[in-house]
Parts: sequence; C-alpha cells; structure tokens
Amino acid sequence: MRNGNAIDELTGLLARLPGLGPRSARRAVLALLEKRESLMLPLLGRLQAVADQIVRCGVCGNLDTAEPCHICTDPRRDQGLICVVEDVADLWALERAHAFQGVFHVLGGTLSALDGVTPEDLAIAGLLARVRGQPVREVVLAMAATVDGQTTAHYLAERLAGADAKVTRLAHGVPVGGELDYLDDGTLTQALRARLPLA
Amino acid sequence: MRNGNAIDELTGLLARLPGLGPRSARRAVLALLEKRESLMLPLLGRLQAVADQIVRCGVCGNLDTAEPCHICTDPRRDQGLICVVEDVADLWALERAHAFQGVFHVLGGTLSALDGVTPEDLAIAGLLARVRGQPVREVVLAMAATVDGQTTAHYLAERLAGADAKVTRLAHGVPVGGELDYLDDGTLTQALRARLPLA
Repeated sequence: MRNGNAIDELTGLLARLPGLGPRSARRAVLALLEKRESLMLPLLGRLQAVADQIVRCGVCGNLDTAEPCHICTDPRRDQGLICVVEDVADLWALERAHAFQGVFHVLGGTLSALDGVTPEDLAIAGLLARVRGQPVREVVLAMAATVDGQTTAHYLAERLAGADAKVTRLAHGVPVGGELDYLDDGTLTQALRARLPLA
Repeated sequence: MRNGNAIDELTGLLARLPGLGPRSARRAVLALLEKRESLMLPLLGRLQAVADQIVRCGVCGNLDTAEPCHICTDPRRDQGLICVVEDVADLWALERAHAFQGVFHVLGGTLSALDGVTPEDLAIAGLLARVRGQPVREVVLAMAATVDGQTTAHYLAERLAGADAKVTRLAHGVPVGGELDYLDDGTLTQALRARLPLA
C-alpha cells in the first residue's frame, strides 16, 4: 500500500472504537498526522500511561491506578452502603454527579437471555461475599430502567433476600429538565405512581 | 481525581479528534480499557509506528513512510501529469479510486478571504517551481466544488498561465458543495476522465 500499511492499520484499529467508522477513523488519523506535536505525541504518551497504570479493582471492579481503587480505600466513604452498577461507565456517571458517598460494585453487564448472559458471567458471587462478609446496611441496585436491567435487579434482590442489608433501587420518574410532553407513557406512569408530598 | 488523571487526560485528547466529543471519547476510553490486549495495546503499537515512520514528502506534500513518497518515486507514474489537491485526505480519496496515474501536489488548504488564507500560506511556490523545473504536460486542478476551492483553482490557473503545461480541472461530475473525501469512487473516476481545459 501507498503508506506502508502503518496508517491503514491505525485507521482499522481506530474504526473499532465505539462512535467511529472507517471514514471518521481516517479523518482522525489525518488529524493526528497534521497535529503531530500537539495531538499525536501527547495521545501516545497518555495511552501508554493508561496502559501501564490502570488496573481493575479486585474489590469493586472499578478501573483505577490503585488496587484496591481509590473509592474502596477512601476512609470518608461509607463502606456499609454499596451501589451496584452495570459497568464502569455507570460508576463514572454517578461519580460525576457527586451524589453518592458509599462504595460501588460493578457487575460487568446485565443478565440477558437473548445474549446468553447468565449469573455466572457477572460479578454476582463477589457481591454476595461482600454483603455477607462485612457489615453492609444497604445495597442500592442502580441498574438501567431497561428490561434486562430490571430483570437483573429483581434477580439480585432475590439473591440478597437472606442478608441483613436493606435492598433499594433508584427512583423512576421525570428526569430533571425533562418536559412531560416528550416523555414516554411508562415514565409518566412511574412518576405518577411514585408521587410524593410537596415539602 | 479518582483515576489519577491518566484516564481523564486520555479522554480529553481523544475528544479533540474530529467526530468525537467528550461523551464519545469517554466511551472510547472505556472500550480501550475493556479490550486491553485486543485493542489498546495494538493501537498503542500502531500509533507509535505512525509517529515514528510517517513523514511529509518534500516534493508533493503527501504523508508517507518514505521521503520523497512512494507516489513521487514510482517509475510507473507519469511525472509529466500533476494533480493539485487541497489536502492529503483528497489525495487518499483519489488514490482509493485508482483513477489517476500521475503525481500529486498537496496545497495544504484553499485560499480564503474569510479565514485569512493567502497564497503565501499554501504550497503554491513549490508547485510553480515543479511545473517550471521539469517537463510537465498537464496540471489537473482537483479542488473541491466549493467557492473557496474554485477561487483557488482560478488563482492557480492564472499563475500557471505562463507555463507550457496545459491546465485542466475536474469535470462536473463532482456535485456542487461536495468534498472529494466524501465521494464514491465511480464519481471520482468520471470526474477525472471528463476533465476539461480551463476556459
């Protein structure tokens, strides 16, 4: 090939990232080549740093520079409150919101009959061991409000029924900033059913 | 920060690539972390290879592993036929179409009053030197069918008027407002075949 394959191989790898296709990957490679000093070399350094430093936390499944991760070892965080999330992206979303002061547990997906995901494929045994092995007051099941997410939440609630910990789930309702006119019937029904007294 | 900044810095750099924003960059970083062996490490290697090996051709402005590039030194290509393109993406698009057997000259952009791009900012002096310094029969002006592209083509046609080379432009197979990089091979081939003398 005209560019000795290095460019084509890089394009092919970038095209495998979510949100990029062959065409946008080619544009990305060109942008990297045009901005060698300001973009390509810093990206190379950061990618190397991430590859070298980031490990999966053996306790909660988070991705971090430390093992156990900074959240699991933070003395200011409530170890008696575990929030169960589907994946690391959800953990990061909750961290960005600064709304949760407990610790996490990353399942690594949801149960799915269609995709053949069984309880053994998820980090459920580790969760049960954590809940039984230490004084946990509450487990928040923060699954997505999808069929698979809610199936997983119900399965976990059953498995956790014998433990002392209270099992809760995220509230369903109108998203902040959301207009009623644009919401689906299911969300509106949930929001009406779970209505609260106006303080 | 929770991930020792390496992840955040990588996300910030990826978000600067065309077609990616902060959110899709975060998803890309997660995909890299989840597929460390199959995606992150190969990407790291390819990026390093591209950074090490790819240089800009001093003759035509192409990006390649050799200097001068493989196109400029290919004995099967017609050195008397120069195709002038705006950028390397356009050169690659023409190469993918396999429709051109001459050599290239990359301008590095188009003249633009709005963006303050003057003839001195483009590789025009180098083009004139090439056309005068060697027996060039024909210069194909393969600018985009945009206002800036056509302005640039007319400016180049004026500057090339004194030379012996015939000056041509792409045929009207290129849709008005279309950019070469986004066209299908058939359209590019037609446009090259039906090239006409600049009136």
